[in-house]
Amino acid sequence: MEYRIIMIGCGTVGQGFLEILERKAEQLLDQYDFEPRIVAITDKLKGSVVAPEGLNISKILYRLKEGQRLNTYDGPKIKTEEFLDPLNLIEQVEAEILAELTYTNLKTGEPATSYIKKALRTGKHVVTSNKGPAALHYHELKELASVNHLQFRIEGTVMSGTPVFHLVENGLAGNDIREIKGILNGTTNFILTKMENDQMEYEEALKLAQELGYAEADPTADVEGFDAVAKAVILANVLMGGKIKPEEVKRQGISALKRKDILEAKEAGQRFKLIARIKKDGSRIEVSVSPEKIPISDPLAGVMGVQNALTFETDLMGEITIQGAGAGRIETGFSILSDILAISRTRSKTKN
Amino acid sequence: MEYRIIMIGCGTVGQGFLEILERKAEQLLDQYDFEPRIVAITDKLKGSVVAPEGLNISKILYRLKEGQRLNTYDGPKIKTEEFLDPLNLIEQVEAEILAELTYTNLKTGEPATSYIKKALRTGKHVVTSNKGPAALHYHELKELASVNHLQFRIEGTVMSGTPVFHLVENGLAGNDIREIKGILNGTTNFILTKMENDQMEYEEALKLAQELGYAEADPTADVEGFDAVAKAVILANVLMGGKIKPEEVKRQGISALKRKDILEAKEAGQRFKLIARIKKDGSRIEVSVSPEKIPISDPLAGVMGVQNALTFETDLMGEITIQGAGAGRIETGFSILSDILAISRTRSKTKN
Repeated sequence: MEYRIIMIGCGTVGQGFLEILERKAEQLLDQYDFEPRIVAITDKLKGSVVAPEGLNISKILYRLKEGQRLNTYDGPKIKTEEFLDPLNLIEQVEAEILAELTYTNLKTGEPATSYIKKALRTGKHVVTSNKGPAALHYHELKELASVNHLQFRIEGTVMSGTPVFHLVENGLAGNDIREIKGILNGTTNFILTKMENDQMEYEEALKLAQELGYAEADPTADVEGFDAVAKAVILANVLMGGKIKPEEVKRQGISALKRKDILEAKEAGQRFKLIARIKKDGSRIEVSVSPEKIPISDPLAGVMGVQNALTFETDLMGEITIQGAGAGRIETGFSILSDILAISRTRSKTKN
Repeated sequence: MEYRIIMIGCGTVGQGFLEILERKAEQLLDQYDFEPRIVAITDKLKGSVVAPEGLNISKILYRLKEGQRLNTYDGPKIKTEEFLDPLNLIEQVEAEILAELTYTNLKTGEPATSYIKKALRTGKHVVTSNKGPAALHYHELKELASVNHLQFRIEGTVMSGTPVFHLVENGLAGNDIREIKGILNGTTNFILTKMENDQMEYEEALKLAQELGYAEADPTADVEGFDAVAKAVILANVLMGGKIKPEEVKRQGISALKRKDILEAKEAGQRFKLIARIKKDGSRIEVSVSPEKIPISDPLAGVMGVQNALTFETDLMGEITIQGAGAGRIETGFSILSDILAISRTRSKTKN
């Protein structure tokens, strides 16, 4: 079945998604009867193009790799511009799906939230890896999707394409989740790993993380726990029905940890990890992000480097842990495909 | 939506399943619009009862706990017998789903395979945690289900209710799986854990496992790797399209391992695990079960005691590891519920 997709934003994640579509076109058609048609892309930095018949993905990727703007696209199209306004585009271009791939804004969730609302109001499913709308406006957007018989899917907001929401929605359906705890930030986990394994001080490990591209020039969002807080809030609200705001989360980063602390913990058979913890106690949900000394036997203790992991404590299945990539161009691009395939599974069944 | 379910076999798994239904009735109806109706149970040791209006699950569980036979059931019913023939029962009782819960036979897959075929030929979906039919006849049964527009689901055959097949089917759709490796037998993992942590010799650890009910009086199926082989074959055939037979698997158990070997590995930063490994190389699939020394940094190395875990090596997502229970009354009972809920998701979408 054919799916017309609008992409708002075409940065790292968007390009990862397009690369997967290029590489996997045949397999997706064969195995899932899935035929994506990218009908429009608009990106402030990279230009805009509208092509209801579908863009030639190889041509688009070629342009992006050469640093050319999308408005120089020379395949069949009806419009190119330096920058087409996303709200107009979403309203005017016919499509089944909006892939919202703009930047994360954890203060207001904008402009992504407005794009998502526009799509849901004009009959389009929405998939996104953007943490802003999911952390700040999940219930409102989910409700808007629901009344319009549409889906709002967010697999990539936590642990990139590692199937966290898919796992709970399908494989764990029927379980009550009592607690979720996890390592949700690869940068800080990399730093802690280096402090333990290579006996670095915090500053040295941070510098290495920056050199390797794991940490940004201003590392605050990672090392002070804001990124993990956003993900913990999403888990609390999506999987436990919480109504938590990021500012309500008890938060402590890793910047005050010393090599000495790490090595003392190790001596005692423990390991420091930046743990996001969401605990349900009756109708009360408590969320925290802080460095915790966990026993070396805990499945989360073995998660080293930039890997992420989550443990779900459930009533029927006890503890279930999933470990995988927490970031990455292809990995987050896959989350977009994964959510679109989930929509296609529902839709093709409806039409059978 | 109401689902009429026939249960063939009512041992540990069947009772775990019934306990979950009793405990979760309200939640299943509220959250999933799912209303199970057990219309017949037949078990050689426990008796048989047929009740098209649905059995009172609390009454059934009470009888089972008191060691009474099911044919003494005093709720509304149309028939009770010392033992009703499963094939006749499946043919004659109207139902949407067969829960096949008889004993595992890794030589022929019988009698379970015949029950499953009968159900698929008479219009019933099949869910089972029985390794026999899945290890020996998966493709034949899947094909029979498919031509009859029915599902044949086997979540509980590997890692009990820990969602292995759900994970791949939904969350990892679109990935090629290049290799699967895992710890699929809790008994042997418990023994290896005790040999390392408590410095026991193999015989001593085995005796403890037997005392705790993890190992049987004749422990061959576990300690010589046959149980793990069956699960590895299922993974190879279901998830990689293999046509592997159990006798084609390279198999080595743990009974020849000495405490000395375990401790020497530990000194070298490694850990012995009984690893099931399924590797795809072009169209060739190689399956092995053997003790391997894996680096302590491998996610599988941290899996201790009776826990199980699997790592999927994929083309898009790299390595994804899931860890959870590998056995248990409630955990395997949940696998049956989980597969039935999966069927109900498809079905309710079709009818929307």
